[in-house]
Amino acid sequence: MKKHKWMVENGTFAVLEGNQSVIKGYMVVEDDRITYIGEQKPQIEEPIEIIDGTHLLFLPGLVNTHGHAAMSLLRGYGDDLALQVWLQEKMWPMEAKMKAEDIYWGASLSVVEMLKGGTTAFVDMYDHMDQVASIVDQSGMRGVLMRGVIGLCPPEEQRQKLNEAIAFAKAWHGKADGRITSMMSPHAPYTCPPELIEMFVQASEDLDLPLHTHMSETKAEVQQNVDDYGLRPVAHLERLGVFSRPTLLAHAVHLTDEEIDILAKHNVAISHNPGSNLKLASGVARVPELLKAGVTVSLGTDGPASNNNLDMFEEMRLAALIHKGVSGDPTAVPASEALRMGTEYGAKSAFLNEVGRLEVGMKADMIALNTDQAHFLPHTDFISHVVYSASAKDVEHVWVDGKQLVKNGECLTVDEERIRREAQRTFERLTAQ
Amino acid sequence: MKKHKWMVENGTFAVLEGNQSVIKGYMVVEDDRITYIGEQKPQIEEPIEIIDGTHLLFLPGLVNTHGHAAMSLLRGYGDDLALQVWLQEKMWPMEAKMKAEDIYWGASLSVVEMLKGGTTAFVDMYDHMDQVASIVDQSGMRGVLMRGVIGLCPPEEQRQKLNEAIAFAKAWHGKADGRITSMMSPHAPYTCPPELIEMFVQASEDLDLPLHTHMSETKAEVQQNVDDYGLRPVAHLERLGVFSRPTLLAHAVHLTDEEIDILAKHNVAISHNPGSNLKLASGVARVPELLKAGVTVSLGTDGPASNNNLDMFEEMRLAALIHKGVSGDPTAVPASEALRMGTEYGAKSAFLNEVGRLEVGMKADMIALNTDQAHFLPHTDFISHVVYSASAKDVEHVWVDGKQLVKNGECLTVDEERIRREAQRTFERLTAQ
Repeated sequence: MKKHKWMVENGTFAVLEGNQSVIKGYMVVEDDRITYIGEQKPQIEEPIEIIDGTHLLFLPGLVNTHGHAAMSLLRGYGDDLALQVWLQEKMWPMEAKMKAEDIYWGASLSVVEMLKGGTTAFVDMYDHMDQVASIVDQSGMRGVLMRGVIGLCPPEEQRQKLNEAIAFAKAWHGKADGRITSMMSPHAPYTCPPELIEMFVQASEDLDLPLHTHMSETKAEVQQNVDDYGLRPVAHLERLGVFSRPTLLAHAVHLTDEEIDILAKHNVAISHNPGSNLKLASGVARVPELLKAGVTVSLGTDGPASNNNLDMFEEMRLAALIHKGVSGDPTAVPASEALRMGTEYGAKSAFLNEVGRLEVGMKADMIALNTDQAHFLPHTDFISHVVYSASAKDVEHVWVDGKQLVKNGECLTVDEERIRREAQRTFERLTAQ
Repeated sequence: MKKHKWMVENGTFAVLEGNQSVIKGYMVVEDDRITYIGEQKPQIEEPIEIIDGTHLLFLPGLVNTHGHAAMSLLRGYGDDLALQVWLQEKMWPMEAKMKAEDIYWGASLSVVEMLKGGTTAFVDMYDHMDQVASIVDQSGMRGVLMRGVIGLCPPEEQRQKLNEAIAFAKAWHGKADGRITSMMSPHAPYTCPPELIEMFVQASEDLDLPLHTHMSETKAEVQQNVDDYGLRPVAHLERLGVFSRPTLLAHAVHLTDEEIDILAKHNVAISHNPGSNLKLASGVARVPELLKAGVTVSLGTDGPASNNNLDMFEEMRLAALIHKGVSGDPTAVPASEALRMGTEYGAKSAFLNEVGRLEVGMKADMIALNTDQAHFLPHTDFISHVVYSASAKDVEHVWVDGKQLVKNGECLTVDEERIRREAQRTFERLTAQ
C-alpha cells in the first residue's frame, strides 16, 4: 500500500528538547509516524499534502492518566456535597442502574469532549469496558482500558470480577491497530482485601500487564489502612507485591517522605488529579516533592462527576498554579514541567512508549492550537501560554497514529450530535427510573 | 426616539433567586434595560426582534474587579521566576518604557479578550488611563477606571500623580453614557506613605468616589507594614480613614480574624484574585471566612502578566475549587456562590448598582453561553456547569446596556485583527529598545 505522507509548513512545534522549547519550521508524517521535524524545508521528490502551520502551535497529544469516562452521565449531579452524601445518595444509586448501553453513551460523550479538547490517549477504569473499547475503536483515539474491581463482596464474586478483568484484557489488549492496551486494576486498598490484590498481582505477571489502582486519595482511607492492616497504603501495597510490577497509582495525595522514597525506588508512576482532589476536598498532593524525588507524575481528570470537565489544559494549569500557591515557591512546577506532565510523563505513566513527544520515530499523536487569538499574544513564550492561558477550545486539529480525528474543531470519526442526544436521553432515563 | 425592543424566546436565564437558580422562558429588553423575565410568553403588540434562546444559557455579564489591562503586553514575559526577580528584571524595566500609545494597544488586547470571554465590566488601575478610557468608550464595554499612584517618589511628584488621578476622574467619571466610572486609587500601603493615602481619602470625599487599593497580597508586605507603622495593614488603613469611604481592596490574602471583623464592620469589599495569588505564590485568601463574616467578595484576574489570561470562568472555578481543597470542606464556596462572586458581588464591589443580576429594571449587561456542547451535558445543574465545566470560549453573545458587542463569538465594535497585530508590534518594539 502507498504511504500516506504529508507535511506541515511554517508551524511551531513544542519539542521541549533541552533548552529549546519550540522549533519553527517543518514536520513530515508518514503513515503513523513522525519522520522529520526541523527548521529547514526537507527535500521531498513526490507531491504531497501540505498543511499551512502559520498560526498553529503543535503539541504532543495530551494523555489523561486517570478517569472513568462513563461518569460524564453524572456531571453536575450532586455537586457541593460532603463526600459520603455525594457517593451514597447520588453516585452509587445511579451507577447501580447503569447498563452496558448507558456506559457506551457516557463514554462516547467523554470521547467527544476529550478529542475536541486535545486529549489523544486516556486511562480508563470502570465496568462494562467492552463498551468503552468499542467507542475508542470507532473514534480512532488511544485508550488504556481496564475493568476496575471493587472487592467489597463475597470471595466468589470477587473472583468472578477478576475473571472479567482478565477476559477483557485478553480480548482487547493490542487491538484497534494497537491503540487499545490494558492493565490489571484492583480499585483501591480500602475496597479490595489483600488476597484479591495479590491475585491481581499474579494476573498482572501472567498477562505481562501493568497494574493501576487508586491510593491515598483521602486522609480517612490512609487511617483506615493503618487501622486495618497496621501499615500505611504504600507499605501495604509494597508488601502485597504490587510494586514488583510496573504500577500507576491514582491520586497519592497523602504521602510521607518515606512513602515518596519507596515510590521512587520502585519506579511507580503517579496520576495527579488536581481538579478532582480540590473539588472533593481531598487535599493537595506533594507534587514538587514527588518530582524532586524522580517520580514520574502525570495528570488525570478523574471522572467528570468530580471535576467536572475533561479539559487537560485546566489540569496542567492547576498543577502549575496550586503547588506554587500552597508551597509559597513561585518557581514550583514551572510551565515546561506541567506540559511534560500532560504529555511525556503521561505517556510514560500509561506505559505508552511511542507517544508523548514530538520527535522523529514517535507515533504521530499530536494536536494543533490556534495561536491567532488575544490570549496567545504577544508571541513570547508559547509553553507558558499553553499552560497559563490556553483551554481545550483552542484546539483546532487532532491526529492519532497520523490519522486526523478532529479538523477545525469538528470530530471526523464520531457523530457528535447523535452522541450528545443519546447521552442526554440516557441521563433522563436513569433519573426517571 | 423609538425604543429598541427585543425578546429572547425559549432561553434559560440564571436568575439565582432564592431556591430558583434558572428560569426557562422569555426575556424582553428595551433599550438598555431588562423589562421582562418569565416562564410565560409576554403579550407584545408590535412586531419586535426575536432571538432564539433554545441552546443558550443567559448569565449576568461577568465583572472583573481587579486588573491592569495594559499588562497583556507582558503576558508570558518572565514566568516561573521569584517575585522580586520577575518585578525588578522583567516587569518594571518594560513598564518604564511604555508610552501612552502602548497602553492603548495593550488595553485594547485585553478588552478583546475580556469581551469575547463574557466580561462586561472591569476595574482597572494603571497609568495613561485616558488610553484605557478611550478603548472602553469605543468598545461599548463598562469600565471602572482609575490612575493608580505609586508613591515611592519625592512628595512633589506624589502630589503631581495625585493631581493626575483627580484630573482623570473629573474628566471621565460618568462618561460614555455612564459606562465609565472612576475611583481614587493609592497603589498600596507599602508603596504609599500615610500622608499620601490621607490625601487620597480627602480626594475621595471631595469627588464623592470610592477608594481602591492593593492590600496584604504577600506575607512580606504585611510584616513590612508592622515594622514601618507598628500596625498590620487593616488597622493602618482604618487609622488613615480609608474605610470611612466606600472601599474595594485587591487581594487581602493574609488576614487575621480580627482584621476580617474590621473589614466586615466597615462594609469593605474584597477583590479575590485566586489565579494571580497562586501563580505568584502569594498564598490562599481566607475566602470562606470572609463570606461567612458577611464581607462582599468578588473576583479579579489581576494583570495578564500574573494570571495569564482574563478568563473569569477560570477565576470562578478556582474560587470554588481551591477553598474546598485547602480547607478540607467540600461544601466550601459552592457553585452558586462562586457565580455570584463573578457577577452580583462583582457589581457591588465595583459600585455598579444597576448590573450584576438578570432582573427586571436592571441594565441589560448580559452574556449567552452555548449549552449544546459535550461538557454542558447532561442538562442537570446549569450553575454547576458554568462554574465547574465552562470556559471563556463558551460565550456566544455579549450585550452591555442592551447593545450587542459580541455576536457568535465575534467582536462587533472593535477591530480585533488590527488590535492583535498592533499589540504584537508594540511588544516587539518594546523588547527591541
